[in-house]
Amino acid sequence: MTAQGSLPSWTDGPTKAAIVEFVERVTAEGGDGFVPPAERIAVFDNDGTLWCEKPMPVELGFILKRFAEQAEADPSLRERQPWKAARGRDYHWLGEVITKHYHGDDSGVQVLMGGIVQAFAGMSVGEYESAARAFLDDARHPTLGRRLQDATYLPMVELLRFLEANGFTAYIASGGDRDFMRPVTHDIYGIPAERIIGSSTGLRYQADEIGGTLVYEAAMDVFDDGPMKPVRIWSRIGRRPILAGGNSNGDIPMLQYTGGSGRPGLRLLVLHDDPDREFAYTSGAEKSLGIAAAQGWTVVSMKDDWSRVFTDAP
Amino acid sequence: MTAQGSLPSWTDGPTKAAIVEFVERVTAEGGDGFVPPAERIAVFDNDGTLWCEKPMPVELGFILKRFAEQAEADPSLRERQPWKAARGRDYHWLGEVITKHYHGDDSGVQVLMGGIVQAFAGMSVGEYESAARAFLDDARHPTLGRRLQDATYLPMVELLRFLEANGFTAYIASGGDRDFMRPVTHDIYGIPAERIIGSSTGLRYQADEIGGTLVYEAAMDVFDDGPMKPVRIWSRIGRRPILAGGNSNGDIPMLQYTGGSGRPGLRLLVLHDDPDREFAYTSGAEKSLGIAAAQGWTVVSMKDDWSRVFTDAP
Repeated sequence: MTAQGSLPSWTDGPTKAAIVEFVERVTAEGGDGFVPPAERIAVFDNDGTLWCEKPMPVELGFILKRFAEQAEADPSLRERQPWKAARGRDYHWLGEVITKHYHGDDSGVQVLMGGIVQAFAGMSVGEYESAARAFLDDARHPTLGRRLQDATYLPMVELLRFLEANGFTAYIASGGDRDFMRPVTHDIYGIPAERIIGSSTGLRYQADEIGGTLVYEAAMDVFDDGPMKPVRIWSRIGRRPILAGGNSNGDIPMLQYTGGSGRPGLRLLVLHDDPDREFAYTSGAEKSLGIAAAQGWTVVSMKDDWSRVFTDAP
Repeated sequence: MTAQGSLPSWTDGPTKAAIVEFVERVTAEGGDGFVPPAERIAVFDNDGTLWCEKPMPVELGFILKRFAEQAEADPSLRERQPWKAARGRDYHWLGEVITKHYHGDDSGVQVLMGGIVQAFAGMSVGEYESAARAFLDDARHPTLGRRLQDATYLPMVELLRFLEANGFTAYIASGGDRDFMRPVTHDIYGIPAERIIGSSTGLRYQADEIGGTLVYEAAMDVFDDGPMKPVRIWSRIGRRPILAGGNSNGDIPMLQYTGGSGRPGLRLLVLHDDPDREFAYTSGAEKSLGIAAAQGWTVVSMKDDWSRVFTDAP
């Protein structure tokens, strides 16, 4: 398959050309941009980069379902956030939490996180995995007419396969919860559990008669966003990526870290400018778009660069 | 190559047979012990399991060299531990730290760790990697007549290759520093940087004109020993191992976690009982040897089960 032929949902133009030229450059043995396969590390944000994050991140639906169950069981939670918003389906409160976070105000995130760590405390990793898998098998997107996990961007999946065919190894570096993504990433992206980097909740080893169980604690471990992304990427892989994809201000350090002194680097920033097929928004991405323009990062226009958007529809 | 033929430095007997039978069982399609390749995860401790840890752990030599340099540069450090011991080559103080740790007393470890985090604070991951590589390229074992990195157990390297040939993926899960091991693990074990799990120092992302640099902070991140081993293994891989190798009490939770309810599991415990070719000691391994005897773990006798010990000598 030719390079062009392996990205069928990307329209011909400067964005696709930038990707193809970059891959040709780093794979050309003897060329001055050649990068050995072991160093061809690509990292991708997930929410808004590989799958749809509007009207709210996929994971939030899972958490809200859990909050609502908890509020049903315990009336004392019903007047407290975040359980109140979950039970009342108050998406405005939740949307504000995310918007405020992107603008540097994490007060709402802290309230939400306080609920999240309590929501799953005491659950084993196996129980959580089963619950996440069951949710993602069923849950539907509220407006796009498909399952949440099928609101995945086909061109990005094609890109993952194209990179893989060219000796790259791709990781997901997401602010989303690592263990929520893991049950489905192999099926939808071809990326196995050991290549998922993300936010994590504290775990403890609990000895028992079946060799021990790993159980979530009521405490955040790492919130994998902003400057933590390069830290966690390096901690996990031990290498500096040469290609990264993101879509928001939280991805700036990861995108800046990509490449490095004297090495090739391709930085992709997905622009949500397609209200007909997906959503149009730049909230939370303003600063990243400014840097992209100033430093020549490759902006991916959903409207112009993608002939198809989702994995399961024309 | 036959199963037997691929472990030439293992003597015929129950230990080798247990390994070969386990691998045959989990790879026999249609058999009741079959494990798909993606789930054939093997984890190994490093110090005392894959390479020699006596008279002191390999990494400690690297750290002592750094302490001595610091004490030369700053006289105020010369009367304080751990710099005093490093400068005076007081191996007794250092040996006691390790022995006390294995017996549950971490007071010495804390003094040592306090020095370690200060020793490398402000250094970039690239500088540390170069320093570790340079040390390991040169440093020699004090009594075994070879480089430290060549004091690696040949039978264990053969086991890694045998597992790999049978669809296993091996990780190192060590109490030693992740970033100290990474520069050499691919060359000596065939295990790349992304499969090294170990203790870690805090890192921070420091923006600069070359896309940012990762710099060590003066703080421990994770001490990867005891119950943290299964936690970090699962956090990194997202799977429960089916084979583990260790040699001390700090490996007990990792060995117990291996396998799991209704799944095959092989637990190897390396016994240092060969004073002629390596060392003879059980200090710090007493409890693990007791559990091994009680629960039928596979004890690997260096004296009886290995016809050769090291990678570069007959």
